[in-house]
Amino acid sequence: MTHSLDVRVYYEDTDLAGIVYYANYLKFMERGRTEMLRSLGIDQAAFKEETGAVFAVRSVNITYRRPAKFGDLVTVETSVTAMTGATVDLLQRVQLDGETLTEADVRIVQLSAKGRPMRLGTTLRARLASLG
Amino acid sequence: MTHSLDVRVYYEDTDLAGIVYYANYLKFMERGRTEMLRSLGIDQAAFKEETGAVFAVRSVNITYRRPAKFGDLVTVETSVTAMTGATVDLLQRVQLDGETLTEADVRIVQLSAKGRPMRLGTTLRARLASLG
Amino acid sequence: MTHSLDVRVYYEDTDLAGIVYYANYLKFMERGRTEMLRSLGIDQAAFKEETGAVFAVRSVNITYRRPAKFGDLVTVETSVTAMTGATVDLLQRVQLDGETLTEADVRIVQLSAKGRPMRLGTTLRARLASLG
Amino acid sequence: MTHSLDVRVYYEDTDLAGIVYYANYLKFMERGRTEMLRSLGIDQAAFKEETGAVFAVRSVNITYRRPAKFGDLVTVETSVTAMTGATVDLLQRVQLDGETLTEADVRIVQLSAKGRPMRLGTTLRARLASLG
Repeated sequence: MTHSLDVRVYYEDTDLAGIVYYANYLKFMERGRTEMLRSLGIDQAAFKEETGAVFAVRSVNITYRRPAKFGDLVTVETSVTAMTGATVDLLQRVQLDGETLTEADVRIVQLSAKGRPMRLGTTLRARLASLG
Repeated sequence: MTHSLDVRVYYEDTDLAGIVYYANYLKFMERGRTEMLRSLGIDQAAFKEETGAVFAVRSVNITYRRPAKFGDLVTVETSVTAMTGATVDLLQRVQLDGETLTEADVRIVQLSAKGRPMRLGTTLRARLASLG
Repeated sequence: MTHSLDVRVYYEDTDLAGIVYYANYLKFMERGRTEMLRSLGIDQAAFKEETGAVFAVRSVNITYRRPAKFGDLVTVETSVTAMTGATVDLLQRVQLDGETLTEADVRIVQLSAKGRPMRLGTTLRARLASLG
Repeated sequence: MTHSLDVRVYYEDTDLAGIVYYANYLKFMERGRTEMLRSLGIDQAAFKEETGAVFAVRSVNITYRRPAKFGDLVTVETSVTAMTGATVDLLQRVQLDGETLTEADVRIVQLSAKGRPMRLGTTLRARLASLG
């Protein structure tokens, strides 16, 4: 089970090399995570208000294979690869025509309002498991 | 006749004030212009290859009324207000629930490969006029 | 009296046209305003904590004359052109080798914690007047 | 031998969590690499014109420990950890008051005008070795 989000490449995403600037793939992936959560019924603003918790990125291990270009309609695919107490590991791929342009292992940690790692709730855990 | 594009506000768009950073509305508007051209059958990359011409922004007069926030689904509305030989004037509005958050007069100029103002072609002019 | 800030153009600032993306000049100008305030002894984070007030951009009227390119060391010049009760009008120019690339009239408004326009304090007003 | 670049955190760098947005550390690191090359006498635009070669990021393995905040003056430290035929491995750290906020292993590859990996020249290799 993988979550998919289509993303159009605009001028703002490119650099003078004529391709997507390397940091901007992280923006695409963050959009993918936000929409993944939304598809699971989790609105991050409401979630923060109810639980005090936020999600922070702990690490990203990203490999760039081929570049995306202006006008491309790429797909951000997101799946859950592992969960521990407070962390979620994701595999995220930016794809074009079935080919992987960029691929990343992303570790997310749930933080309490005080910024401490906070155990994932049962409901959240069950929902995320559906994308495993 | 107005072109409309829906844009979701993500983390990347916000700043520490908790709202969309002021420069990022220009990104939303540029996406609106790109999709407006696409809706008129104009792919800017192909257009440049065929004609050598590109579109550059000459001026922007933007007013910020109310902020957009994370999670908002805003609409970028674009219409053509005037055309001269080489320029197109647009009115662009970022709307939320029927209210205008931000509004801009944008002047675009068509430039030749050498960077000189270049008269808009008849076909392009006719297509743009349909959004007037 | 004009405040000056040097800004180097990096890859992140450019787009596929090989020049600085039009929204990014607003980032350069915001850096200029931040450093202008700092040069007047105003740290915005501390200022907000003490007074509850923040500065928001109300409008920008920007004209693009010539582009900046990767590697350019441009100068952002900022001067105060007018003040009313709650607003400050600035003229900001991005210069390269004494030539103006981009020029903007920027209106800033001081907002209270509740988001209402808030009269500029005497000290702030006096400091800003020194850049008039 | 480590190259150091000071970077001020501005509004544009932050997100609604009140801290630097995770993708923006990659911008800071790219600025660090650009200035490192400049300190070695390599202007990337001139280098491309002379040799046809460009540098592309192949992979980034980044860990986020503590956030940077608005107004912070962070230091980007860059050192060369390994070189092979066409690649350079760098260790890059974003530091604040001697503490590492964010740390990344970055692999750069030199590409020919045709986009193929291209062996690093002797001069470039010697210069980079001075940062090892």
